[in-house]
This record gives sequence, C-alpha cells and structure tokens, in this order.
Amino acid sequence: MKMHKRAILPAGYLASGVACGIKKSGKPDLALLYSNTPAKAACHFTSNTIIAAPIRLNRLHLKKSKAFQAILINSGNANCFTGKKGLHDAARISGRLSYLLKAPKESILSASTGIIGRRLPASKIIRSLPSLLKGLSQGGIDAAMNSILTTDTFAKAVTVEDTIAGRRVRICGIAKGAGMIAPNVATMLAFALTDAHISQRALSRASLIAVDSSFNCITVDGCMSTNDTVMVLANSKAGNPLIDLDRYFSRFLSLLSRVYLELAKMIIRDAEGATKFIQINVSGARNVKEARQVALSVANSNLFKTAIYGQNHNFGRIAASVGSSGVKVAEQDVKISVSPLHRKIIDVRILLYRGKHSAVVYTSDLTPQYIKINAAYN
Amino acid sequence: MKMHKRAILPAGYLASGVACGIKKSGKPDLALLYSNTPAKAACHFTSNTIIAAPIRLNRLHLKKSKAFQAILINSGNANCFTGKKGLHDAARISGRLSYLLKAPKESILSASTGIIGRRLPASKIIRSLPSLLKGLSQGGIDAAMNSILTTDTFAKAVTVEDTIAGRRVRICGIAKGAGMIAPNVATMLAFALTDAHISQRALSRASLIAVDSSFNCITVDGCMSTNDTVMVLANSKAGNPLIDLDRYFSRFLSLLSRVYLELAKMIIRDAEGATKFIQINVSGARNVKEARQVALSVANSNLFKTAIYGQNHNFGRIAASVGSSGVKVAEQDVKISVSPLHRKIIDVRILLYRGKHSAVVYTSDLTPQYIKINAAYN
Repeated sequence: MKMHKRAILPAGYLASGVACGIKKSGKPDLALLYSNTPAKAACHFTSNTIIAAPIRLNRLHLKKSKAFQAILINSGNANCFTGKKGLHDAARISGRLSYLLKAPKESILSASTGIIGRRLPASKIIRSLPSLLKGLSQGGIDAAMNSILTTDTFAKAVTVEDTIAGRRVRICGIAKGAGMIAPNVATMLAFALTDAHISQRALSRASLIAVDSSFNCITVDGCMSTNDTVMVLANSKAGNPLIDLDRYFSRFLSLLSRVYLELAKMIIRDAEGATKFIQINVSGARNVKEARQVALSVANSNLFKTAIYGQNHNFGRIAASVGSSGVKVAEQDVKISVSPLHRKIIDVRILLYRGKHSAVVYTSDLTPQYIKINAAYN
Repeated sequence: MKMHKRAILPAGYLASGVACGIKKSGKPDLALLYSNTPAKAACHFTSNTIIAAPIRLNRLHLKKSKAFQAILINSGNANCFTGKKGLHDAARISGRLSYLLKAPKESILSASTGIIGRRLPASKIIRSLPSLLKGLSQGGIDAAMNSILTTDTFAKAVTVEDTIAGRRVRICGIAKGAGMIAPNVATMLAFALTDAHISQRALSRASLIAVDSSFNCITVDGCMSTNDTVMVLANSKAGNPLIDLDRYFSRFLSLLSRVYLELAKMIIRDAEGATKFIQINVSGARNVKEARQVALSVANSNLFKTAIYGQNHNFGRIAASVGSSGVKVAEQDVKISVSPLHRKIIDVRILLYRGKHSAVVYTSDLTPQYIKINAAYN
C-alpha cells in the first residue's frame, strides 16, 4: 500500500471549488466532486434525530437510484432546522445541477455544513453552478477540499493506492471537521472517491466497517451534528476484477479503513483550539462495545481534557470518568497509565481486568481557544 | 416559611471547623457537624461505580445503625482510588472521633472532597480532632461551612423555618461544589440538619424526592464525582408531633426541598468560571424523564455553553443537542426560545409537542476561566 498525504483523484473523477458568497469572508464555500461515469455509493449519516435537509434529500435519492455522478457540498450554512423550505432549497439546487450535468436527478448527492437554523441562499449557489462546472478538473480537488471547510485550520486529504490483480486501485479522501465531533458519524463531512471495481454489497460493508473503526472512534466535544456525512463513490475505472465479499474484500477494506482513519485523525489534530492529540486505549474489557464506552466517557470528560491541556497529572479524573461510564467497573478492576504530558501526543492506557477486548478512541484537549472559537462562531 | 441566606443551627446541634494541614494553602479543611442526641439520617451517594472510601464506610455504618451523632468532613483530599488503605484510613479517623465523642463507632458519618488518588493524611486529621471538638459551638457552623470548600468562591448555606403544630421546625443546610457537577448526586457535598421530629421512612422519602428535584437537576460539566454526598440529620429536638408519611409530610417536604434547591442553585451560581446562570425548561414531553433527558443534553453541550458565554444567539446548537439527546424528536416537534443573552440569568424554553410533562435543569456557561481553574487544579 502506498499513501500520499494529499488528494490525487482516481481515474474518471474531476473536482472543482468556488466562492459563491455564502461565507461573508469571501472564502470558497461550494465544492463539486464528479465522476464521468455512474458510480456506486455507500453513505453514512448523522444519528441525530434532527437532520439537515441535504441528508433528507440524499435518502430520497438513495432509495430511487443505485448510480451516482456528483456530490455537491456547500460550507457556511448547514441548511438544517430550516423546515420544508430547506428541503425545497436543497432539491432546487440539486435539480439545477442535474440539468447542467445532463445526469438523472437522483444521481446527485449533497452535503452542507455551517450555521444551523438559517435559510440557505439557494440563488447564490445556483448562480455559481456554471462557474463551478467550468472549473472541473483533476487538479480541482484542491479547490474542492478547501471549499468544504468551516473552522478548520487546514484542509484534510489523503490518497492510498494498491495493486489488485495487477491493476492499480486508488482511493482519495477529503474531509472537514474541527468541532462538534462525537461518535456516530458526528459533525464532520468526509468523501472518498475510488476507481475500484466493486460490488454494491462489498462497498457498503467495507464502508460500514471502516467508519466504525475511524470516524466512530473520535470525539472533540461530545457534540453530535445534524449534518454528519460520510460518502464513498466507486466508479470501476481501475478495471480490476470485481471486488466482492469473498474476493479481494479485505484488501479493499484495509485501503478504505486507512483513508477513513487518516482523515479521522486529521480532524482530531485540527480540533478547535487543541494543543494535544490524545489516544485512549481501553483493554481487558468484556467486549468492544464496553471498551469503547469507557474510552468515550474519558474522552468526553471536560475535567480530563482540561487536565491534559494543563499538563496536570490527574489520574483521579480518569478514574472518575471510568466509574461514570455506565460500565460497572470497581476500583480494583482498573489500572491507568498515561504517557509524559509535555509531549504533543498523549497515550492513555486503561486496563480493566474484565475480559480480552479493547478499543481506541482519539480526542483532543479542551483549551481556552476552543471557547474563544465557539463563543464567537455565528 | 421563613428563609435565611445563612446558616443558623437548629436546636441540639453544634459545629466546628479547623485547618488540619491537608490543604497546602493553610485554609480550613476539616469540619464537624454534631448532634448532642442521636439523630435519624437519610443519605444519598454518587452513582459513580468508583466510590470514595468514606462512602464505603458510611454504607457499613448505615447498615448497622439507625442513630447518628456526627458528620466529619475533610476537603483537599477525596480519599478515593486509594484501595483498602483508603478505607482503613477512613475507619481509623472515624474510630478515633467516636472514642473522643464517647459515641458508638457506627454513629459517625463522614465525607471527603478534593484530589482523587492520593492517600489521605490520616495522622494530620487525627491530631486535629481535639481542637476540632474544642471548637464545637452554635456559631461554629460558619467555620464548618468554610472548611468543606475546594474551588468554591463562596460558602453555601441556607436556613428555613416553619411552624408545625405550634412548634418551630428549622432546617439548616450547607454545601460545597463548583465543578464536576452532573445529575445523580454529582460532585458535591450537601448536609442538612433539622430539629424536626420525623419518622425514618418520612425522612428518607422526603430527602429522596427533594434530591431528585434539586441536586439531580443541576449540571456544570457533566462530570460525575466519586464522592458526591447528600446527608440530612433529624434529631427531634423541635418537639413537634411526629411527622410521618400521612401527617405534616408535604409541609416538611417543601421545607427540605427548598433547602436543597437553594443549595443546588448556589452551586450553579458558583460554577467554576461561570458568568451566566442558565435555566433550561423543557415542556410538552411525554414524561418527566424524557423532559429531563432533553434538558440535560442541552445543558451538557459544550457548544451551547460556549455560545451562551459569547452571548451568541445560536439556536442551531440547542436544536442539535435536542436531536442528539436520545429522545426521538423530529424538527417539526421542537420550538425553542431564549431570553436576552446580555443578562446574567438566561432562560431557555424548549417546547416539544409530544405530551404534557416538563422538567427544569440548571447549568452555567463554559468559559476560558473554567479551563484555567481545572488545568491548574492539583
């Protein structure tokens, strides 16, 4: 496997990004990812019960279609808590793009991120679609990845390649997210494009497993967004023999898992105001679920996260979080160790003496800068 | 009902507080509450599964005895995550106090608050017991209430009085707590002393109901302590006819509820680094449990709490927290209103259109000062 810490589009994809005027700053805020042939898709959306309009629209499209050609993403406005008008806005924009691309209405997927509760400026977006299409190119992925950012301080992209039966298969992933990050695909957008030739069920299964061990293992603030989205498109252009559940599956899974995990870790590295990257490893649990539950309880503890920020060796706060995780752990069942706190990467190891299972969760420290960013964000 | 915003001991009680040397600052850190006749007690402890040594000791005493004479409280050290040695330390101190007071071993209750995971300096405490006893007086309650504080910026005390069948009944409450506050009796200590003549079952029931509508409705940071304790003693000195479940119960309950709620609100007012007092009122829920679940989800959202700090009218963050509460609320089921954000007291009203039940939760904003306090605390 070869990995590049930048975006290199696989065969058959183009991308573009422009500033359409949603962001007052004039920064780019509209991105298009395009496959020149219909592609299979696997999608994962927020588990928040209040769901953004583009996700509701995607669900309708995913019911009707199995072939997709474009993902349109805007930043600066979440188009959420906007009622029927919000859904109408999303459908209007998507419909217009379908017309311009001469692609079926249902082949367009979309995503939004930004302020919740404000009407999306649909006309601004529609007016910018022609220039967005004009910009479609292989190099356009850099503009695209910059156009999906909000409070992010850097763009997040990774590309992996491997050979499957003599053919080079590539997966390129881009993501955005820096706050409002919690498991269950929380407060982030991630898009992967691959030229792999793969069955729908293998793509869906691989994406599900890969999400579970990456985006579902990160938390910044325990806040779950209304817009979280992970999407992967596969357009078969690599010409490899079909990947299915019983053929080349684990190879493809390890590639996709790598892409998702790298993006997830970049999101944590860019966590709002963070100064530390924290890995919480819980082992000796009865099952993976309880290991993760304990790890997340620690990862979401404000007291723990401020202690790490203060380079304050406060084991007690870790113990208190373990004990309030909902897993019935007694004092004598817990052993805690923490790596030196002056480093940038902090390793927390929690041993439970209950079983053989383990889980890792990634998080960041909680800093005055997080509050400064979020007190002002609007 | 008459209320005083200070501590006035009821008949038959004395109190004292000294500096025994646990706190490096030299501030008072050891308190004694004493009833000169055996009193009934009702106690509520943390639901954290990692439990401090004094709580484990109290449970043993509560099993063996129905009559209590003293509550010994130290601050500066939680005596938690200290294993068998911690329990032995707590028992040794308690045993020594029982000897000095000439009271049965089981009649002593105790509580600790402070750093978790460090051995309690038992000898320092034992050496200070004689001077602690010497200081016992009615006015000593002020020294006692100051000796239980940690990061608190002010002492918390309230006294209520009422007449039951011609006899004046008084309840005096003191508390400590400023961070690590979450429901289920979380990260706080509260002690109430009453001269009421009341049956054990009425006292237990009243305390349970009063805790549920006060301390279980506050949250600062969603962090649940290992040491949380609420205790009430009743020594019958008021000479009123017996309060029981079917006689004068609601009168006593309203007095005790008032004491607990006032103390709970003081804890929120003193929340670490807070600049706002926030009341979250959820109505239109199917039952009280789901109303409280939604209110707590909002109250524990860092994004919501930083927005209130920044006086940033961000309804979207409230909507996102409602949607991630675990209650299956759709967008059209939620109506949100928030009082003007420049005020010190913020009213958040969330209407759910699902039923007739409601709940109120109290919390504070999240500020850079909270992080400063907790990054340094050790």
